[in-house]
Amino acid sequence: MADTLRVAVIGAGRMGADHVQRLHRRISGAEVAAVVDIDLGRANATIEGIPGAVALTDATEALDGGDVSAVLVATPGFLHRDILLAALERDLPILCEKPLTPDADSSWQIVEAETRLGRQRIQVGFMRRFDAEYAQLERTIRSGEFGELLMLHHQHRNPSTPEGFTNEMLINDSVVHEFDAIRFFTGEEITSVQVRLGKATKNAPAGQHDPQHVLLETESGVLADVEIYVNAKFGYEVATQASFEDGIVNIGGDRGAYVRTAGRWGGKVTPGFEDRFGAAYDVEVQAWVDAAVRGEIGGPTAWDGYATAACCEAGVEAQKSGEKVKVRLNTKPALYN
Amino acid sequence: MADTLRVAVIGAGRMGADHVQRLHRRISGAEVAAVVDIDLGRANATIEGIPGAVALTDATEALDGGDVSAVLVATPGFLHRDILLAALERDLPILCEKPLTPDADSSWQIVEAETRLGRQRIQVGFMRRFDAEYAQLERTIRSGEFGELLMLHHQHRNPSTPEGFTNEMLINDSVVHEFDAIRFFTGEEITSVQVRLGKATKNAPAGQHDPQHVLLETESGVLADVEIYVNAKFGYEVATQASFEDGIVNIGGDRGAYVRTAGRWGGKVTPGFEDRFGAAYDVEVQAWVDAAVRGEIGGPTAWDGYATAACCEAGVEAQKSGEKVKVRLNTKPALYN
Amino acid sequence: MADTLRVAVIGAGRMGADHVQRLHRRISGAEVAAVVDIDLGRANATIEGIPGAVALTDATEALDGGDVSAVLVATPGFLHRDILLAALERDLPILCEKPLTPDADSSWQIVEAETRLGRQRIQVGFMRRFDAEYAQLERTIRSGEFGELLMLHHQHRNPSTPEGFTNEMLINDSVVHEFDAIRFFTGEEITSVQVRLGKATKNAPAGQHDPQHVLLETESGVLADVEIYVNAKFGYEVATQASFEDGIVNIGGDRGAYVRTAGRWGGKVTPGFEDRFGAAYDVEVQAWVDAAVRGEIGGPTAWDGYATAACCEAGVEAQKSGEKVKVRLNTKPALYN
Amino acid sequence: MADTLRVAVIGAGRMGADHVQRLHRRISGAEVAAVVDIDLGRANATIEGIPGAVALTDATEALDGGDVSAVLVATPGFLHRDILLAALERDLPILCEKPLTPDADSSWQIVEAETRLGRQRIQVGFMRRFDAEYAQLERTIRSGEFGELLMLHHQHRNPSTPEGFTNEMLINDSVVHEFDAIRFFTGEEITSVQVRLGKATKNAPAGQHDPQHVLLETESGVLADVEIYVNAKFGYEVATQASFEDGIVNIGGDRGAYVRTAGRWGGKVTPGFEDRFGAAYDVEVQAWVDAAVRGEIGGPTAWDGYATAACCEAGVEAQKSGEKVKVRLNTKPALYN
Repeated sequence: MADTLRVAVIGAGRMGADHVQRLHRRISGAEVAAVVDIDLGRANATIEGIPGAVALTDATEALDGGDVSAVLVATPGFLHRDILLAALERDLPILCEKPLTPDADSSWQIVEAETRLGRQRIQVGFMRRFDAEYAQLERTIRSGEFGELLMLHHQHRNPSTPEGFTNEMLINDSVVHEFDAIRFFTGEEITSVQVRLGKATKNAPAGQHDPQHVLLETESGVLADVEIYVNAKFGYEVATQASFEDGIVNIGGDRGAYVRTAGRWGGKVTPGFEDRFGAAYDVEVQAWVDAAVRGEIGGPTAWDGYATAACCEAGVEAQKSGEKVKVRLNTKPALYN
Repeated sequence: MADTLRVAVIGAGRMGADHVQRLHRRISGAEVAAVVDIDLGRANATIEGIPGAVALTDATEALDGGDVSAVLVATPGFLHRDILLAALERDLPILCEKPLTPDADSSWQIVEAETRLGRQRIQVGFMRRFDAEYAQLERTIRSGEFGELLMLHHQHRNPSTPEGFTNEMLINDSVVHEFDAIRFFTGEEITSVQVRLGKATKNAPAGQHDPQHVLLETESGVLADVEIYVNAKFGYEVATQASFEDGIVNIGGDRGAYVRTAGRWGGKVTPGFEDRFGAAYDVEVQAWVDAAVRGEIGGPTAWDGYATAACCEAGVEAQKSGEKVKVRLNTKPALYN
Repeated sequence: MADTLRVAVIGAGRMGADHVQRLHRRISGAEVAAVVDIDLGRANATIEGIPGAVALTDATEALDGGDVSAVLVATPGFLHRDILLAALERDLPILCEKPLTPDADSSWQIVEAETRLGRQRIQVGFMRRFDAEYAQLERTIRSGEFGELLMLHHQHRNPSTPEGFTNEMLINDSVVHEFDAIRFFTGEEITSVQVRLGKATKNAPAGQHDPQHVLLETESGVLADVEIYVNAKFGYEVATQASFEDGIVNIGGDRGAYVRTAGRWGGKVTPGFEDRFGAAYDVEVQAWVDAAVRGEIGGPTAWDGYATAACCEAGVEAQKSGEKVKVRLNTKPALYN
Repeated sequence: MADTLRVAVIGAGRMGADHVQRLHRRISGAEVAAVVDIDLGRANATIEGIPGAVALTDATEALDGGDVSAVLVATPGFLHRDILLAALERDLPILCEKPLTPDADSSWQIVEAETRLGRQRIQVGFMRRFDAEYAQLERTIRSGEFGELLMLHHQHRNPSTPEGFTNEMLINDSVVHEFDAIRFFTGEEITSVQVRLGKATKNAPAGQHDPQHVLLETESGVLADVEIYVNAKFGYEVATQASFEDGIVNIGGDRGAYVRTAGRWGGKVTPGFEDRFGAAYDVEVQAWVDAAVRGEIGGPTAWDGYATAACCEAGVEAQKSGEKVKVRLNTKPALYN
């Protein structure tokens, strides 16, 4: 049908290949038109069994091929800037995996380019906003049902980290999700970041101080904190406790079958983000597709990408200094209000 | 694309309309080709905003229109037999909402017709098999992880019943799901049914004795029971506890945000089956579509529909007599082994 | 002080020795005066470190020794009748571990003897009534907060059984607690018992059919059932779910520290009744002591002991016949109203 | 009996009166000998129904009366110093409600006096150490079962505060419990305190900034934090999450009957510390009595009282400055090793 989105997926790594399968098997109203990867073999493997899809090594070629009406960016972050600018130039709907770009300066260039274009075209892949419990907590805060929100306590735990996961990546790749979540929940910008380093686990690779305790404040003074612990071994956990004037709300609790055997009660911990947020990715991509058909975006904006990049910069500085670091933001363009 | 399923949805009531939206918005590889309802206005309302779909009043017209490659049956049960036979005649893939047909005799006719056709074409809409926790419990039983399964305790509760919900419908429309679930979990047929009637709630409509306690046995002697309580007011609940030689497993627990306010802790009860099993319907229909493209079915068979119909007949008899009633089944055709 | 109860503990087995420690270390207003056991060595070991206590082999000697003002009976059940009659003759306050006596006939003799005495002197050791959650559920039922009580579902699981635990003991020693609990919760007598035997665990000793499903009805038609499973391996569990017109209430859930490690979430299952009901024993004995000082009893009566004995007789008959068996009770003496 | 402790309870306010009832009704091996209060009427009311107890207005008179063999101090904190010194002089076993004294200097005087006496006589009333879950977590940490302890996250919430509860009392009366708990769990001293003040609830009285986020470190670098929120309205909560190298352990979860009604699942929040820690008080006092009979103490020492007083001083300073404040401690006398 005329309104089926023909998507070029840029990047055929783990996330890209996952999105290709998602678009092909579970998303309605979109098809995979092209997969672009510097490794053509990997691109070819990714399109296997998908009729009508082509494998390419050059993103520009995909965008100009005539058959592409939307772009999903899933390359490493340092390549995002050029692809985003090229896609904006062609006025295509874009879903860009986080981060928007790796630093606040280049993110700001994207915001400026989109502002010049005059319409929102970029949706950033903060998929947690599409998780049912995240959405429920956001609605609860917005509703005022329990009065004003006062504090947010976040736990973010991974069983282990991939090779080469640096100390800075704890902030840039992990806590970045909480930066966006706190902005999403409060509807406010984060104004400062402090990082506490205490006793470290012996299970972290050299150069990584794990866990870390990240302290944040928002414009209205909401105190947020994040326990980031990425070599926690037991499993994957992302949970939030929100303290209100009239109540406390928790999301992200353990789930699944409840078992009693061999002297214990309980269940299985979620092993990774795919199990925890798999459904959220589906909802996110479907929301993007549905909005793109109408010429809109259906989730976090380039401004959200820029603002979290600024938080990350402050966070990494705070990791080093131990001091409270102010988050510096340019004035928000009217396009994002 | 060539392998997109063009689906005729027969019946534009609540379930049918829901399936139309599902096929249109969330299912990949299928489109709504036609919606058939005796009420043309309702059929027309259902296809609004769906390009390429037509509204009709005659199922045969839809099946013969040339544009239809699959059938989803969502009419009242008493109409199923004729539609199923017509669709089988045309060798179309069929997803039939439960019940297969309202009684064991007519269900057996469907089994015979499909057996003559020589291939499985009908998938019956016992969607609970596609719920993540149901599937997990079935795998757990199959794995032998906790030894032999000994007992199954089921709770099935609805907040209230629609007008005209008779005493027999407690068995035929509600417990029928547990009949299938117990067969699914154990991989065995149910051999007998007994029904206990005790103290009744004042909240049930006249003629309905609610709650009821249904006792079942399977071929190997697994003792199952179902507390069916359809005017339970507090909300919707479908839960199972399985007792093994080496452990106990529960599924169907309450979920969602955990709130503390006004002196209490807890969360919101699921209000109805849509919230509890909405995702299961999506998985079910996607599984059917994916299998249909390959010329297969992706879920419960016509035999499952027939066997549960026989359980329902025994259940209604047991309701009346208070005695243990044997479930009578014809020999299973080889097609279903 | 004058009102300190000087208690003769009859029986120095596990329960008796436990009560001696309880009276000595944790109960206020009572002291151990004598411990009686046919095995004098065991009696002597039990009073070690308890100043003022004597070890004896003859219960009558203890009762007549002049220093005893109350009796706690913890011998095997077949010895209860004679000790109870002797203690009633001396008009002493009595706490009698369950069962009152092993059968309905001898229990009725006790009821008659106490009725002749004209005052309640015997408290029976159904300690679950003193568990905080049991008491809470009983109050909830009594309050009418959730409307009428309709159904009671009980789970009673032990990790394993001691040697010599016969099929009849599943009823007489285990389900007897639920007989009393159901009478306590409903405030009604049990009118019939049915027992279902299905697939059995390989972990039960020869001669024991485990698990069993016990079905009960009360005077007003409340349907109760008990899943009794005494070789369940995983641990100890006693739980109840009560279904009301306006809600469902569960007691007996797992408790304690919540742990996540090695891919799983949860905690440790209670290993046995001592951990589950230890505090209830303390509350029970303190209630008995406090009441005894006032010349009263503080818990279940001899009538409760007699009525549960009658349920046990019906239960054992139902185990054998597979049929629903009526519970036969004599008229309740006015003393117990 | 000779070894029954005759206790003088000093202070007949809420805590004192509660202890009198506890000693009289539930504690074995101790009796109330005297109740001292500046308000003789209150003292007299408190001993009503307790044979052998006298009411007095002068603590010294009680200590010298000849009938007193132990002292329980439950006056306001500013009176503790003189009573403790008087009781130490007479070499009596003492249970002193927290705080030991209101400031580190006077607490140090008590430590010095006890050190001069040369034996531990004072047990401080940090009753949480006697809570079953607290004790379980301490044992878990000590066992090394989950590797090294890395972080401790505490939540301390009250429904509201009594009149006159100042900003400093959030630290001195509430967080003081966590100061002791963190020392108990880690077996280490606290080395610094920082306090974050953010958005405040409108439900706090004037002059109180509520909630506050208190950040602590221990000698080995364990990062602890306390969310103290004393006008949280929903109920009372004291909970801890401990992060280890190989797992996460939570204590203090909600408990009690699990109810589903009117669209929600859950239970009742504990309304106050009496319900949460009532059993812990019983265990604490029984442990003190049992130890006192042997000439020992059975819980936290005067050093624990002094060290938490030093933490409180640092905490109040940190509240004012917003900076991280070092906790200053004198060298620990050998008596406490």
